[in-house]
Amino acid sequence: MRAITIPEPGGPEALVWDAVPDPVPGEGEVLVEVVAGAVNRADLLQRQGFYDPPPGTSPYPGLECSGRIAALGPGVSGWAVGDEVCALLVGGGYAEKVAVPAGQLLPVPEGIGLQQAAALPEVTCTVWSNVFMISHLRPGETLLVHGGASGIGTMAIQLAKAVGAKVAVTAGSKEKLDHCADLGADVLINYREQDFVKEIRTATDGAGADVILDIMGAKYLDRNVKALATNGRLAIIGLQGGVKGELNLAALLGKRAAITATSLRGRPVAEKAAIVAAVREHVWPLISGGHVRPVVDRELPMSEAAAAHRVLEESGHIGKVLLTLP
Amino acid sequence: MRAITIPEPGGPEALVWDAVPDPVPGEGEVLVEVVAGAVNRADLLQRQGFYDPPPGTSPYPGLECSGRIAALGPGVSGWAVGDEVCALLVGGGYAEKVAVPAGQLLPVPEGIGLQQAAALPEVTCTVWSNVFMISHLRPGETLLVHGGASGIGTMAIQLAKAVGAKVAVTAGSKEKLDHCADLGADVLINYREQDFVKEIRTATDGAGADVILDIMGAKYLDRNVKALATNGRLAIIGLQGGVKGELNLAALLGKRAAITATSLRGRPVAEKAAIVAAVREHVWPLISGGHVRPVVDRELPMSEAAAAHRVLEESGHIGKVLLTLP
Repeated sequence: MRAITIPEPGGPEALVWDAVPDPVPGEGEVLVEVVAGAVNRADLLQRQGFYDPPPGTSPYPGLECSGRIAALGPGVSGWAVGDEVCALLVGGGYAEKVAVPAGQLLPVPEGIGLQQAAALPEVTCTVWSNVFMISHLRPGETLLVHGGASGIGTMAIQLAKAVGAKVAVTAGSKEKLDHCADLGADVLINYREQDFVKEIRTATDGAGADVILDIMGAKYLDRNVKALATNGRLAIIGLQGGVKGELNLAALLGKRAAITATSLRGRPVAEKAAIVAAVREHVWPLISGGHVRPVVDRELPMSEAAAAHRVLEESGHIGKVLLTLP
Repeated sequence: MRAITIPEPGGPEALVWDAVPDPVPGEGEVLVEVVAGAVNRADLLQRQGFYDPPPGTSPYPGLECSGRIAALGPGVSGWAVGDEVCALLVGGGYAEKVAVPAGQLLPVPEGIGLQQAAALPEVTCTVWSNVFMISHLRPGETLLVHGGASGIGTMAIQLAKAVGAKVAVTAGSKEKLDHCADLGADVLINYREQDFVKEIRTATDGAGADVILDIMGAKYLDRNVKALATNGRLAIIGLQGGVKGELNLAALLGKRAAITATSLRGRPVAEKAAIVAAVREHVWPLISGGHVRPVVDRELPMSEAAAAHRVLEESGHIGKVLLTLP
């Protein structure tokens, strides 16, 4: 098969479309013939050499895909060759074929195209596990989403609105904020022009956000704690603004607040399967019912993954960037 | 009645045993005739002017007491005048009488003296809410307790052992560590001589602590994150080592870990009542059954509260210091 390889870490040009051996599905795994993959910010770090795949996993980038099951490994039940699926991957999604534990497969939701389904696994699993399973966002509470126009952001807005929460978002342009509003966001904050701490307080009669979904890490840490409500929960899923920040524990304690930081890729297979099962139970009906939809910025041929990475680096996109195979 | 008043913040001598008006139980409250109070570290901060009581609450220090119900306010059911109780207070426990919401009352557990029961409310509610309700310590997991010989520490050791967890403690002397061992602690760390990060790793085959109950705040923040296991939970309940510390978010994210910081006093009455109810359900049977006991360092007359504060400031005590009334 062919796959995007990274012979040497570096810029987008480090991504090389090359012939490689086919993966072989192990115990409990299936082989998926890929129709589309999708780009995640973590792929950019992997390309630069800052986020190596866990030992024993695919060396190719790509944390999600859609496609058809081409073969079943030993001990797999509930799936058949030919099934149309999308999948959460530990890597290897930038390829014509990928082996994946059966617990990380999801059926293609009713009403969603097979290609488009590649936009779903990472955002649904990340948002559901962080905002709902870890931070327990409840109806009537306020969620603040940083990067509201990102793939994660566009899904977080829709899921939080679907369960009856109020949603505030930050983004860097009017175009992005307009798109967030179209998806249901109630409070629109342009982080280039406004102070999100002040804006979230104004929007909540001084209370603050009950849950914050953060991708900035250190740069926003102090402001995020300030923006939290009493009993607030800060869920950090990205460190785009740096790794080490000063934490005011008195402020945290005064609010009886919580900070969590997680990633999906490092989780053991059983934890991923539990998240995927929860997503299938809670999120899939919302998608099939037309209440929540994948937001796709554009599709590019997988062989042009370098161009897709440039799109993410320029941060002008809204939603997901897909990598398609003919 | 008489109570310990604080005419001017300051050292232990700022505590003045004085005649003051009796409290009047409001809607949903009872009046308790106090037999004993207990000293908490927060009382020392209040005495120094750093931890003012919430508006509308008793100006006198004291976050817990035991005694007999002397009167019922309007709307109280399930309790009667003469009942022997202990109570979680927002303040006012250093006094001959105190008014307290009925939801913060607990019966005196079987086998425990009325006076001794004053040692229970703060430690049981703090440990149960943090280690179990918030951090979900499970059987077979490892709990690290900083200040193992404190009132909180001695209760945390016993409760964690009672549910089948492994317990590591830090303390500053062999005498204190010996006492922790008597209560069931498995791993004894003298923080003056040993590095607790290294010791907890050694004791857990490199895994780290699943839950850490911390009283040091900023001073231990970085080391606590290092000492956490994957999926670990750091529960901060005191800031004796400072307020602002550097947090390594990459380390937190790599472990998918959580940091919480809470206090009991600031919680609304309904949250306190929920914690007290959980303690009555889960902890009281362990005390009545003889599996868990209050640890009392010494008893002093309430009028000598200044001497009791000096005991805490010197940190030589093991367990709780009680303030008794004749």
